[in-house]
Amino acid sequence: MSLTPDQQAEIEALRAATRETHRVTAPALEEILYQPLPVLDHGFIRVVDYMGDDGAVVQAARVSYGKGTRKLREDQGLINYLMRHRHTTPFEMCEIKYHVKLPIFVARQWIRHRTANVNEYSARYSILDNEFYIPAPDNLAAQSTAGRQGRGEALGGEEARRVFEILREDAARTYAHYTEMLNEDEAGNVVDPDRKGLARELARMNLSLNVYTQWYWKVDLHNLLHFIALRGDAHAQYEIRVYAEALLETVKRWMPLTCEAFMTYHMGGAHLSAKGLEVIKRMAGGEKVSQGESGMSKREWRELMEALGREA
Amino acid sequence: MSLTPDQQAEIEALRAATRETHRVTAPALEEILYQPLPVLDHGFIRVVDYMGDDGAVVQAARVSYGKGTRKLREDQGLINYLMRHRHTTPFEMCEIKYHVKLPIFVARQWIRHRTANVNEYSARYSILDNEFYIPAPDNLAAQSTAGRQGRGEALGGEEARRVFEILREDAARTYAHYTEMLNEDEAGNVVDPDRKGLARELARMNLSLNVYTQWYWKVDLHNLLHFIALRGDAHAQYEIRVYAEALLETVKRWMPLTCEAFMTYHMGGAHLSAKGLEVIKRMAGGEKVSQGESGMSKREWRELMEALGREA
Amino acid sequence: MSLTPDQQAEIEALRAATRETHRVTAPALEEILYQPLPVLDHGFIRVVDYMGDDGAVVQAARVSYGKGTRKLREDQGLINYLMRHRHTTPFEMCEIKYHVKLPIFVARQWIRHRTANVNEYSARYSILDNEFYIPAPDNLAAQSTAGRQGRGEALGGEEARRVFEILREDAARTYAHYTEMLNEDEAGNVVDPDRKGLARELARMNLSLNVYTQWYWKVDLHNLLHFIALRGDAHAQYEIRVYAEALLETVKRWMPLTCEAFMTYHMGGAHLSAKGLEVIKRMAGGEKVSQGESGMSKREWRELMEALGREA
Amino acid sequence: MSLTPDQQAEIEALRAATRETHRVTAPALEEILYQPLPVLDHGFIRVVDYMGDDGAVVQAARVSYGKGTRKLREDQGLINYLMRHRHTTPFEMCEIKYHVKLPIFVARQWIRHRTANVNEYSARYSILDNEFYIPAPDNLAAQSTAGRQGRGEALGGEEARRVFEILREDAARTYAHYTEMLNEDEAGNVVDPDRKGLARELARMNLSLNVYTQWYWKVDLHNLLHFIALRGDAHAQYEIRVYAEALLETVKRWMPLTCEAFMTYHMGGAHLSAKGLEVIKRMAGGEKVSQGESGMSKREWRELMEALGREA
Repeated sequence: MSLTPDQQAEIEALRAATRETHRVTAPALEEILYQPLPVLDHGFIRVVDYMGDDGAVVQAARVSYGKGTRKLREDQGLINYLMRHRHTTPFEMCEIKYHVKLPIFVARQWIRHRTANVNEYSARYSILDNEFYIPAPDNLAAQSTAGRQGRGEALGGEEARRVFEILREDAARTYAHYTEMLNEDEAGNVVDPDRKGLARELARMNLSLNVYTQWYWKVDLHNLLHFIALRGDAHAQYEIRVYAEALLETVKRWMPLTCEAFMTYHMGGAHLSAKGLEVIKRMAGGEKVSQGESGMSKREWRELMEALGREA
Repeated sequence: MSLTPDQQAEIEALRAATRETHRVTAPALEEILYQPLPVLDHGFIRVVDYMGDDGAVVQAARVSYGKGTRKLREDQGLINYLMRHRHTTPFEMCEIKYHVKLPIFVARQWIRHRTANVNEYSARYSILDNEFYIPAPDNLAAQSTAGRQGRGEALGGEEARRVFEILREDAARTYAHYTEMLNEDEAGNVVDPDRKGLARELARMNLSLNVYTQWYWKVDLHNLLHFIALRGDAHAQYEIRVYAEALLETVKRWMPLTCEAFMTYHMGGAHLSAKGLEVIKRMAGGEKVSQGESGMSKREWRELMEALGREA
Repeated sequence: MSLTPDQQAEIEALRAATRETHRVTAPALEEILYQPLPVLDHGFIRVVDYMGDDGAVVQAARVSYGKGTRKLREDQGLINYLMRHRHTTPFEMCEIKYHVKLPIFVARQWIRHRTANVNEYSARYSILDNEFYIPAPDNLAAQSTAGRQGRGEALGGEEARRVFEILREDAARTYAHYTEMLNEDEAGNVVDPDRKGLARELARMNLSLNVYTQWYWKVDLHNLLHFIALRGDAHAQYEIRVYAEALLETVKRWMPLTCEAFMTYHMGGAHLSAKGLEVIKRMAGGEKVSQGESGMSKREWRELMEALGREA
Repeated sequence: MSLTPDQQAEIEALRAATRETHRVTAPALEEILYQPLPVLDHGFIRVVDYMGDDGAVVQAARVSYGKGTRKLREDQGLINYLMRHRHTTPFEMCEIKYHVKLPIFVARQWIRHRTANVNEYSARYSILDNEFYIPAPDNLAAQSTAGRQGRGEALGGEEARRVFEILREDAARTYAHYTEMLNEDEAGNVVDPDRKGLARELARMNLSLNVYTQWYWKVDLHNLLHFIALRGDAHAQYEIRVYAEALLETVKRWMPLTCEAFMTYHMGGAHLSAKGLEVIKRMAGGEKVSQGESGMSKREWRELMEALGREA
């Protein structure tokens, strides 16, 4: 992640200003407000604004005139109850706004979450920075041989060397061609006064999907947790999972009670089918059950055994 | 509007607390934070939390690292441009949360606006207050004779007297029957220990549509303005229009520049059809145009003349 | 449920017409197309239109040029996989439209599902029918004594008699007052030419929450199943649960493979928390676990034991 | 646009099948059902399914038991009224599903319309085709010199030649590198058995934004028209505008009355601000008004004069 001195000065100016408010605040989140948290090689997330705290969830659930809060323990109990029983609307009552820098192929997965607000940096108006995602060697994964999706071990040796060579050279070349077609340098200065320059909205099409873009992204707490659950899952692509993990860190600071309930009831839990529940009832009763008698397909059986931490 | 002493104390406690924040604030809105603004005979709206200010619209439109703001005049210019050209996403970047008390027949119109978050006071769990909307004499309107929808003049004399009698007596009787079926008083105390009491979720069905309910309602600025435009319109039912007007007052305090742009480009404006535009071009060229030559239906013509402040 | 002869004739006319189409069809659903399926005392649901079948889910998941279907068994396997892993977007690719008649207090729960399209019969323009929901004796439940929400046993004897008396008399009286204030009979004929009549949008406020309304409701398959899962659950209020059950019957006809996957992986399943999963791992390993050692609250423990079909 | 013989055979099979239905049909749309309509050099849209017709809009607006239709003229009148007064919910009652092939930079604009359902071809699972958008010479536009956004005249001569060279060579090279990193050919056959091959979800990042993707896109009629209004506008980028125009052709076949109302009241119309309306009132009264006296900025004035077809 690299910020220009101007950008850093702007961020510092925001952090230096302190105002009075009658609204609730989340002190641990205030500590990192506006600060970019690095993700991948050039990306970041930073919290730009927020609304509400754990008490606001309780307040909304009770439709109260005041804080809604009684005692810390009761609040945790109510939040746990709401989370466990998927009463999602009180969690929709808190809102957070991020500034995110991310590769376009990650942005394309991210944007599929529709219940959020987005303002993206426009490559129709503006020139994109010369920043491309290049995986770290550990993340240069081979195609998974088991499933059709996902990754196997990291590539090594000559194969890895060649992949890095391709990714770096193609990024450099396509970006150089981008500015050449624009007839502008990165700062927007005309290069050759005798040429017209290709429209920005067209020239961008030559950039590759690992070029970085950025956007403001605003979302309510329920949909944020849903995003983190899906994109922080082990089956999600690594490059979006690290963003989900960074988002989770900000939730911990913002909403400690809600975050704990989320970790207990969602992230660490599992959904069992009717058949899975039947198997478990029998096992809990001391019975030995095999896949053959379970009525489950092999794949389902393997998934169930994984959830139970047993060999399939 | 009547608050219990407990409710007032809770509100005062919230207003008395002041905290420090690095977030942007809207000082004029802070002045009325948490305070109920009366609407109708027992209703209110009150701002419970908010996020963002005019500068946040500019910041999102520019996807900036800092405030995004340059000079006040430039900000107003950009906000006007965004509003005029219906670039709605920067206005989605601000959020506000209200606590609203309103009659159920108003709530049923309100909830049709789907892009918002709601937590309603539950009449499955709790006992509703004995508060019913009874129109003021000026608002006891006759059925409009012109269109099928809307209102004519206020009723008077014996007809009005009888309507008030019906509304008041039926409200009192159905509420008394509600608590009788519950076998509970308003505070939830059992009345007759030998009776079981009807389930709350059932007993409520005997209440009439002018009983008051309440909810927390959270919405982004764009959808709030859309709500105000539709429900603050002259064709909207009076009983929801007054809520829209109260909401607009809070927007003025929260977002003065955006609110001014909204009043100029939406509320005071008009949408013209292709045919309407054609008529206006001819009129602006000095031509006299009649409905017959306009290609418009009588109804369309009347609507156009109204928009132009001319007789049809 | 009572339809007028005109309404029945209109429905028969629609059912009698047969057209040719290149679209996919769901023959078992065509059999009941347009026909009202009775729910509660005066309500119904009826399928008015639909789009897609089980094959369309497969087709969308594969983004195929043709049907997407390979063999029935493969289709079922893919649908099961999508359902189990909550890949919801292919199920959003099918759509269904219902005409529903329902009491207003049920409509108020129903409308909370925002991802759907609704057109409701307007009581601003039109006069509502004289139809009110009165529970059957079996459903005249007492307030639950265990939790704060829900129902206990049915009321009986004098208490039940009095409740029916109240519900019936108040419905009749408020409706009579409604038409008196309107100065119109049910068919919209003016009663007393010397009176103006109260505006329809006002007079309706005197009706109670068990009066019937009706609407067109259109929803995609994923959101329909989500509705059925929440509102068909044992904790949902009986009066909306019977609608969910009627909807489920139409899904069985429309989407047999998807419906089966839904019953297996959602309706009959359970979500376990991290702590619940831990308990189950220990039990499956032959260990005896008590609530005290489980790290779970008594309420959580009771919920887990219920899911496992064991005594708490 | 190029389809494989297999794809063509699949499409023909769908078109050859005819089924009976009691649902309404749109015969002119049935004629082109499943057929790809070419857009840009390799793209297309094709209607895969639909639900409803003009009568369904009327039916929903009236919440009718039957067709809702009275006479053609009355239907057109009601549809015009709904369109003019922005009563949008009846238009949400019709639904259509497309299969679309489009360059990724167009897909990124398209997906910003959130109220729709999407299933995209997955480049995590599958290998993308070797198809890239290369503009036709007429569309190889220079950057607009007036505004910051948009296009000027087409490039010519040496500058155009060089742009084509870049776009073609970079597309060819990045695609060759994509398959080299995958260690697979386009059909998914392993090339070098001694290499592992980079994960598909990673290799795709080397492709440029003009590579084609495809998806199933399902949307209701109201949101479809909103999409067409925004993306078919003169200010939209050419490459998405041609998709909007192709969509409009399908609406004409599907919904002739609604389409006509849309063209009259939206596409050909204009929204006037309060200030614009004031100017027009004065002009229609025979007064000469200049920008200076109008209270409008130069930009606003220019926009108004454009709407009136006058010189600024």
